[in-house]
Amino acid sequence: MSKDLGITPRGENYAEWYNDLVKRADLAENSVVRGCMVIKPHGFALWELMRDALDGMFKASGHVNACFPLLIPKSFFEREAEHVEGFAKECAIVTHHRLTADGQGGLIPDPEAMLEEPYVIRPTSETIIWHSYKNWIQSYRDLPILINQWANVMRWELRPRLFLRTAEFFWQEGHTAHATYEEAEEEALLILGIYRRFCEEWMCVPVVAGIKSEGEKFAGADHTYTIETMTQDLRAIQAGTSHHLGQNFAKAFDVKYQSAEGKEEFVWATSWGVSTRLIGTLIMAHSDDKGLVCPPRIAPVQVAIIPIARADDRERVFAAADQLAEALRSSSWSGLPLRVKVDKSDKSPGFKFNEWELKGSCLRIELGPRDLDANQAVIARRDSSEKSTVALDQVVAQVLASLDSLQNSLFDRATVLLESNTKRVDNWEDFKAAFGGEGGGGFVVAHWDGTAETEARINEETRATIRCIPIVPLDPADAEPGQCVLTGRPSKQRVVFAKAY
Amino acid sequence: MSKDLGITPRGENYAEWYNDLVKRADLAENSVVRGCMVIKPHGFALWELMRDALDGMFKASGHVNACFPLLIPKSFFEREAEHVEGFAKECAIVTHHRLTADGQGGLIPDPEAMLEEPYVIRPTSETIIWHSYKNWIQSYRDLPILINQWANVMRWELRPRLFLRTAEFFWQEGHTAHATYEEAEEEALLILGIYRRFCEEWMCVPVVAGIKSEGEKFAGADHTYTIETMTQDLRAIQAGTSHHLGQNFAKAFDVKYQSAEGKEEFVWATSWGVSTRLIGTLIMAHSDDKGLVCPPRIAPVQVAIIPIARADDRERVFAAADQLAEALRSSSWSGLPLRVKVDKSDKSPGFKFNEWELKGSCLRIELGPRDLDANQAVIARRDSSEKSTVALDQVVAQVLASLDSLQNSLFDRATVLLESNTKRVDNWEDFKAAFGGEGGGGFVVAHWDGTAETEARINEETRATIRCIPIVPLDPADAEPGQCVLTGRPSKQRVVFAKAY
Repeated sequence: MSKDLGITPRGENYAEWYNDLVKRADLAENSVVRGCMVIKPHGFALWELMRDALDGMFKASGHVNACFPLLIPKSFFEREAEHVEGFAKECAIVTHHRLTADGQGGLIPDPEAMLEEPYVIRPTSETIIWHSYKNWIQSYRDLPILINQWANVMRWELRPRLFLRTAEFFWQEGHTAHATYEEAEEEALLILGIYRRFCEEWMCVPVVAGIKSEGEKFAGADHTYTIETMTQDLRAIQAGTSHHLGQNFAKAFDVKYQSAEGKEEFVWATSWGVSTRLIGTLIMAHSDDKGLVCPPRIAPVQVAIIPIARADDRERVFAAADQLAEALRSSSWSGLPLRVKVDKSDKSPGFKFNEWELKGSCLRIELGPRDLDANQAVIARRDSSEKSTVALDQVVAQVLASLDSLQNSLFDRATVLLESNTKRVDNWEDFKAAFGGEGGGGFVVAHWDGTAETEARINEETRATIRCIPIVPLDPADAEPGQCVLTGRPSKQRVVFAKAY
Repeated sequence: MSKDLGITPRGENYAEWYNDLVKRADLAENSVVRGCMVIKPHGFALWELMRDALDGMFKASGHVNACFPLLIPKSFFEREAEHVEGFAKECAIVTHHRLTADGQGGLIPDPEAMLEEPYVIRPTSETIIWHSYKNWIQSYRDLPILINQWANVMRWELRPRLFLRTAEFFWQEGHTAHATYEEAEEEALLILGIYRRFCEEWMCVPVVAGIKSEGEKFAGADHTYTIETMTQDLRAIQAGTSHHLGQNFAKAFDVKYQSAEGKEEFVWATSWGVSTRLIGTLIMAHSDDKGLVCPPRIAPVQVAIIPIARADDRERVFAAADQLAEALRSSSWSGLPLRVKVDKSDKSPGFKFNEWELKGSCLRIELGPRDLDANQAVIARRDSSEKSTVALDQVVAQVLASLDSLQNSLFDRATVLLESNTKRVDNWEDFKAAFGGEGGGGFVVAHWDGTAETEARINEETRATIRCIPIVPLDPADAEPGQCVLTGRPSKQRVVFAKAY
C-alpha cells in the first residue's frame, strides 16, 4: 500500500522511506543550491509551531531575542583556536561585492570589487556576538546577558540530508554572558531542561540527557550538554546541545567586567541551539509507512474534516462540515485554538484519506449525508487508525479527549522503543555484534576507559560513537566503576554508545 | 535637556537626532560588518510585534509561509534582463566553500575550494523562487500560490543608515502565482491595502498610496504600487511596495500552466515586501527630542511602572507595583495582554523617567509611599507629558482609555503633518523653491509630462523624485489634465514629488 503512496516502506529501506516521506508529505525538497533545502508551507507551519513553543519557554525564563549579522569577518575565526578547527573548514566565503558583465553576455565577480577581508557566512555566531558583547559589558550590573536569536546558518555539508543535515539550516542560538562559572553552569542546565521538556512534552520524543566526551564537544566549549533521541531504525539523533563555554570566547574577544568588589574578571559564557533538525528527529521518531505522524501539540493540522458527498448532497454536507469546523476552531486544546482543515477539493474520499494521513493530521473526521441523517460523524485516529462513530454534539469533546490520548500514547510508544532498545554490554564481542547490522543497534550502555584513543578505536571498528555520559544514570548501577568494554582498563561509569545520524 | 540624554535635538540636526535616538533607545547599532546592523533586544521586540501583526494579516487573507535558500546561483540573475540591471550590481558574492591555513598563522579562502559557479546572497528572491515554482505548477489547479517568507536579504549599500538602508536587512517577501493578469492585479492591490492598514492602524503613520513611475518601479515588474509616508523633516519614505510582475519571471523561468480549457499559458505573478525600514519610518514619524514615541499597538513596553521608595518603604512599594503590574498584565488591549515593566533597578526616579521616555514606553506610572497612602497613582503620557492622578482601582481602566487616546492622537498628529505639508505647485520657480532648503520640502503635487527625461531633469535640479501617482487623487482636481511644471507640455494628472530617504 505505501508503494502506491510513493513511500518506500520502512522495513525495505529506511533511508529511502525518510526521503520519500519528506517529499510526499510536502514538508521540504532539495533546492538547486548545493545542500540547501526549500521548506515548503506544510513543513514551515510545523517549524513555526515548534519555534513559537520554544520561544515562549525562552521568554518565560527571562531570555530576549536580538539579531546579529549574517557575515563574520574571516579574522574572527582566527581568534579562538579550537573554534576555527571546528568551523572554518567547510563554510561559504564571500569575497566580492559586485557582479559585472563578462563581455560575453554573462556575469562574473567584479575583480575591482574584491573585499579586503573576506567574510564567512555564519556557521554559528559566537565570534560576532562576543565582539559586540565587548562593548556591552563593563560592570557586573550589565550581567547576565540572556540573548537568543532565530537565524539561518550555513555549513558546507558534504553529505546533506533534508532537515537532518543541510548546508543552510534554521535554528535558534542562545548566547549568554555571566559573572561566574556557576551561573553559566546553571544557565546551560536550565536550557538543557527546556530542550528536554520541549522534546518530551511537545514532540513526544523521550531523550537521554548527558554530557559529551571531549572528542564530541562543541569546538570552543569547556563542556557540552546534549539530548540524544532514538530513531525507529535504532540510531541516535543529537536533538539539541547546550554549551558551557568557560571564558574561552571572553578571552578571545577580551571581554572583562568589573565585579562588585572592583576586580576585573573575564566573563563566563554559554551558547545553545536547536535547529530544523528537530523536524527530522520528529519524523524519525513517530512516522510510519503511511506518512507523517505528528504529536497534536505541534501538528499544523490537528483535525482534517472530509465531507463525503455527491453533487446533490454537496451543499448540505459542506455546510455541516463548516459548522463543525467552526465549533472546533472556537475550542482550544493545550492553550491554543484547534487547527482544523475542511477538505472540499474535488478529489475522491479515499484520496483525501491518504493525503491527510501523509500530511500527519492527528484526527480525520468523515462526514457524509447518512452521518448527517443519523446526527453523527466518524472520527479516525492517525496513530492507531482506530475509528469511532460519535454523536455530532459530542464531536468536540471526543476530539479534545482523543488529542490528549494521542499525545500521551505517542510518547509512551517512543519510550517503549527507547527503553527496549537500550542495553548493557560488557564484552567486546557483544559490543561489536550489537552494532553489526545495517540498522542502528540501539543505545548500548557500556564501560569506557575515558581516553580519546579508545573512543576513536571503538568508532573505527563499529561506527558507534559516544553519545553522552548521562547526567542521571539510566540505571543506578551504570554509575559504578567497571572495566572498559574494549581495553579492559578501569572505567568510572558506563556511557551511552550508538550509531548516529 | 535632550543634550543630557545624548540626543541631538531635531531642530539642530535631524540626521544626528535620528542616529542618536536609535542608539540611545537601545534599538540597534552599527556592526563591524560593513553596512550591517545589530538589532538589539528592544529594537527586535518592536520588530517582532510588527512582524506578528503583519503575519496575522497575511494568514487571514490566505497566505502561507515557506523558506527558500539564502544563496542564488549567479546564472539566475542573467535570465531577467531588467532584474539583473537592478540587483546584480552591488551584492555579496560567495566564491569559495572553505578557508585554509595561509602558512603564516592566518586563514585564506582555499584556492582548491573555489565554486564552479559563484552564488549571490539573495538581494530579493524572485529568481530562486520562480525556479521552484516551475516544478510546482502544472495546471490551473495548482494556482494560485500565495507564499510569503520572512527572511534576511543583502544589498551592498554604499551609504548605509540604521534601519533605513542597511546591507543586510530583514523583511517579508511575498511571491504569488496566478492564472490571469486580473487575479495578479487584485493580489497586488490586496497587499497594498494590508500595508496601508498596517501603517495607519498599527503604526499611526498615514500614507499616500500610488503607482510608481517607470523610472522608479521594481526592476523586473510590470508596474509597482507603493505607500509613501512623510517624516518630521518633511521627506518621503517608501514604506512598502507591491509589484505586479506580469509574466516576466514566468517567461524567464519557463513557468506555464494548463488552463481549464487545456491551453498552455505563462503564469502571472506578484511580489511584495516591507522590511525593518518600517522601524526607521516609525521613528521618523513620531519620535521627539526625548526619545522614541511608539504607538501602543506595537510598543514593546506599553506601561512602565516606576516604584519610588527609600529603603524603608521599598518592600511595600515594590509589592504594590507588582500587584498593579499583574492587574494590568491580566487585562488586554487591542486583543493582546498589556505589556508592562516594573523598573526596580537602583537608579534614581528621574533617571528612570528619562530612560523609559527614551525607550518609548507609552505610559509611565509613578507609585510612591504617599501615593499608596492616598490609594492613588500618577499616570504620565509619553506623547503629551500630561500627568494625571488616578485612584488605584481606576488605574486599569484609565490605562486602557489612555492607550486608545494615544493611538488615535498619534495618527491624528501625523495626518496633520502630512496634510499641512502637501501642497500644489504650478510653476517651476515655486517648485524649485519648495525643495530649496536643507530639509525635505514636503509633498509637492504637480503636473509632469510623463517622460523619463523630464523626471531625470527635475531630480537633477531639485533632488526631488516622483514618489507616486496616487491611486485615489488626494484632491479630485489632481486628476485633471494640466501642463508640466518643468516643460509646460501636456500632463495627464498631478503626481507627488518629494525628497526621499
